[in-house]
Amino acid sequence: MSASIDWQKKNLISIEPLSLTDLDTIFSLARAYKSASESGQSKFDALEGRTVINLFLEPSTRTRLAFEIASKRLSADCISISGGASSLSKGESLKDTAQNIVALGADIIIMRHASSGSAEYLAQTVDTPIINAGDGSHAHPTQALLDCFTLVERLGDLKGKKVTILGDILFSRVARSNIHCLRKLGAEVTLAGPNTLVPKAFEAMDVRVSHNLKDALEDADAIMLLRIQHERQTSTHFPSIGEYTTSFGLNERRAHWIKPNAIIMHPGPINRGVEIDSKLADSANSVILEQVKNGVFVRMALLHLCYAAHRQIKIQAPNI
Amino acid sequence: MSASIDWQKKNLISIEPLSLTDLDTIFSLARAYKSASESGQSKFDALEGRTVINLFLEPSTRTRLAFEIASKRLSADCISISGGASSLSKGESLKDTAQNIVALGADIIIMRHASSGSAEYLAQTVDTPIINAGDGSHAHPTQALLDCFTLVERLGDLKGKKVTILGDILFSRVARSNIHCLRKLGAEVTLAGPNTLVPKAFEAMDVRVSHNLKDALEDADAIMLLRIQHERQTSTHFPSIGEYTTSFGLNERRAHWIKPNAIIMHPGPINRGVEIDSKLADSANSVILEQVKNGVFVRMALLHLCYAAHRQIKIQAPNI
Amino acid sequence: MSASIDWQKKNLISIEPLSLTDLDTIFSLARAYKSASESGQSKFDALEGRTVINLFLEPSTRTRLAFEIASKRLSADCISISGGASSLSKGESLKDTAQNIVALGADIIIMRHASSGSAEYLAQTVDTPIINAGDGSHAHPTQALLDCFTLVERLGDLKGKKVTILGDILFSRVARSNIHCLRKLGAEVTLAGPNTLVPKAFEAMDVRVSHNLKDALEDADAIMLLRIQHERQTSTHFPSIGEYTTSFGLNERRAHWIKPNAIIMHPGPINRGVEIDSKLADSANSVILEQVKNGVFVRMALLHLCYAAHRQIKIQAPNI
Repeated sequence: MSASIDWQKKNLISIEPLSLTDLDTIFSLARAYKSASESGQSKFDALEGRTVINLFLEPSTRTRLAFEIASKRLSADCISISGGASSLSKGESLKDTAQNIVALGADIIIMRHASSGSAEYLAQTVDTPIINAGDGSHAHPTQALLDCFTLVERLGDLKGKKVTILGDILFSRVARSNIHCLRKLGAEVTLAGPNTLVPKAFEAMDVRVSHNLKDALEDADAIMLLRIQHERQTSTHFPSIGEYTTSFGLNERRAHWIKPNAIIMHPGPINRGVEIDSKLADSANSVILEQVKNGVFVRMALLHLCYAAHRQIKIQAPNI
Repeated sequence: MSASIDWQKKNLISIEPLSLTDLDTIFSLARAYKSASESGQSKFDALEGRTVINLFLEPSTRTRLAFEIASKRLSADCISISGGASSLSKGESLKDTAQNIVALGADIIIMRHASSGSAEYLAQTVDTPIINAGDGSHAHPTQALLDCFTLVERLGDLKGKKVTILGDILFSRVARSNIHCLRKLGAEVTLAGPNTLVPKAFEAMDVRVSHNLKDALEDADAIMLLRIQHERQTSTHFPSIGEYTTSFGLNERRAHWIKPNAIIMHPGPINRGVEIDSKLADSANSVILEQVKNGVFVRMALLHLCYAAHRQIKIQAPNI
Repeated sequence: MSASIDWQKKNLISIEPLSLTDLDTIFSLARAYKSASESGQSKFDALEGRTVINLFLEPSTRTRLAFEIASKRLSADCISISGGASSLSKGESLKDTAQNIVALGADIIIMRHASSGSAEYLAQTVDTPIINAGDGSHAHPTQALLDCFTLVERLGDLKGKKVTILGDILFSRVARSNIHCLRKLGAEVTLAGPNTLVPKAFEAMDVRVSHNLKDALEDADAIMLLRIQHERQTSTHFPSIGEYTTSFGLNERRAHWIKPNAIIMHPGPINRGVEIDSKLADSANSVILEQVKNGVFVRMALLHLCYAAHRQIKIQAPNI
């Protein structure tokens, strides 16, 4: 029989409020769900009869799908609302949309939104548990948690481990949430990329900023690549994609700079031949697909924890 | 043990064919589902193993979502088809689309369609139960039923109660269905708004028409606002939105005209600052979110009743 | 107690690799699901707790819906991803999309794709069972199987039976898969239509090609019409739609040429008045809606067989 788990937070808006104990709780429960799933159990009852609403007001398939699968594994009904198709949001404030979803009987709301701060605003507006699936350039906490869960699986304790985040960091919510999470776990973080995308100001987050790629890569235990977003090309900050690839793409030549067992990560979808060479993405160093897989288990843990905290239900890991 | 319920209708196309006893049956069953849900039961077995098809050939998120949640609460599988995404309807007649959905195994079809009369046509075409989720400017019976259910919850017997419907009534299926439902329940109905949108001809429906807002509001027990539809602005009947708000918007000044405990209703989504002032929408008089919540229970009752009538299954309210 | 079924294939990409015994196995299991369903059973447990992903990178509602209903009848969770809404596929290779879906936990992938050969490529890329729901002009095996299942239901053994396929055969995956399936079952196949759409080269598939409609229709036991696709009108091969209807549409006059009990089939959606006259589509000869209905049972059988083969689970038909 597994012991009861202590967790009091009903929302997950960003990484900042989480303690080291909280991170450990999330990872332990995710590990239990992963282990039970790999032993053949496909359904769990933590959200039986509950309604999870995926409110995706910015397009996404991958993250939405991961949350939908995680919800269904926990026996919830999961209904996705996407921005384009949604008349709910037309001419209606986010507050009204949210209050309507709550009135319809949502037990948990997962939201992706183009505006930074929208998830926090939602959490202040309604009593229902809110999980932030990405808000503007602010935060993407479930991505950071699945990334760090994957790192801990591979490297054990992250204290003193060196992690380099490479790419368009300036507007990246993935980078921001990962910096917070990695620093809490004791990792040493280097941010790398062109100086227009990785300004020195980030040093205020207790990280190293490097515009020298060799220097940033050679002692890293793990390298997190960010997706180069084609839509950002018109930005004055952004070089052309060809230029980026030439100077900062992780290609086979540059791969010689990295440690033999350095871990290569990417939140996906990857642009083969742009931010990463195709062979490297498929190499033994890459944990890209393991990140995707772990994303389901980490989200199962988070859905379980936030819902149970809200309803003050005793939380137990699945029995194996 | 609850007594068996008498109900013979397999379709809900409009309010007109419903007797006072029918309305009472719907409201009683909706009340039973609400009460059981509030006691913590989240799943009911009335549609276990059944397939509900949400055929939404006119965009909607709110109503579709309410039906989807209602279906899943009754343990049905619910699949939504929306007009934009649907190749089913491309170059195919409504009759063929419907017959295909029936052949695929639909147990109930819920349809929204831009043409008045389409729901009735569908019901004549296939044997499967049809629930009208809005057809052109003809009818929106489930909206009227949830509105009246909410009114009865608040006011008790509606006989002699005064209800004012305010707004763009000319093309409103919500107004039409509510007029029929309120009159059956014995309420006295006043229609208010600019004379281009609320012609005197409506008096044939046994209601009062008023173009004087103060007069229409001051003795009302309940005020039903309609949504001002931006797309109607090009209509020659329709004033500019600014003009409408100035003359007929329910603002704080005009709120002094209404009785202190008058109920304010709106089918949503609301345009804050257009047909209603933001503070009034959130005031203690407003039952707007209660309407949304009740919409799920009223639709659960209707799905249960129509399906059971079709299959000649004995109908029982959920045990609490 | 039903005997265990022998089936080793985890993918269904095309008809070619299927033996006559395989066809018999599929039809028997489909028949068992149909029979159990008609006896009132609505849910089966073959895919309980499993996740089926409908990856539709080419628009479709009808086929997607049939697979979704089939999956849910087998107690699976089914999630549909459509091309338009999908950021999963944006700038990402099909291989990456598929590997991601597998990492998320898909137990079966059903794919529709505009490129011929894509389903085969997918099956070589991932270990998960793949069911081809139409790839370019290459194959649409589940359509052919449901068509032949329907024919066998009506005609019994197809050996020596005459089947005419009429229409735009040049680019039709439905025609290609049906030719393979019908020939395996021993039917004699005639292809008919204008010579630009039905070139003599098809005779290499061991079928007769006829550009004389009367000749092609008069001894047919079954006539399979193909959908005339409006988007093909710009093709240089294609006559105008009016021209096609005049020369090759199955109208009441030409219906006098067919045998009194000849079966009329169409994969849908039908263009009434174009490739078929409305009265004929609804006549006693037409099995169009039976095809749609059988499509669910044939797909239930295929999902069950492919999944069980992959997991090496003993396969048993449902008990009735």
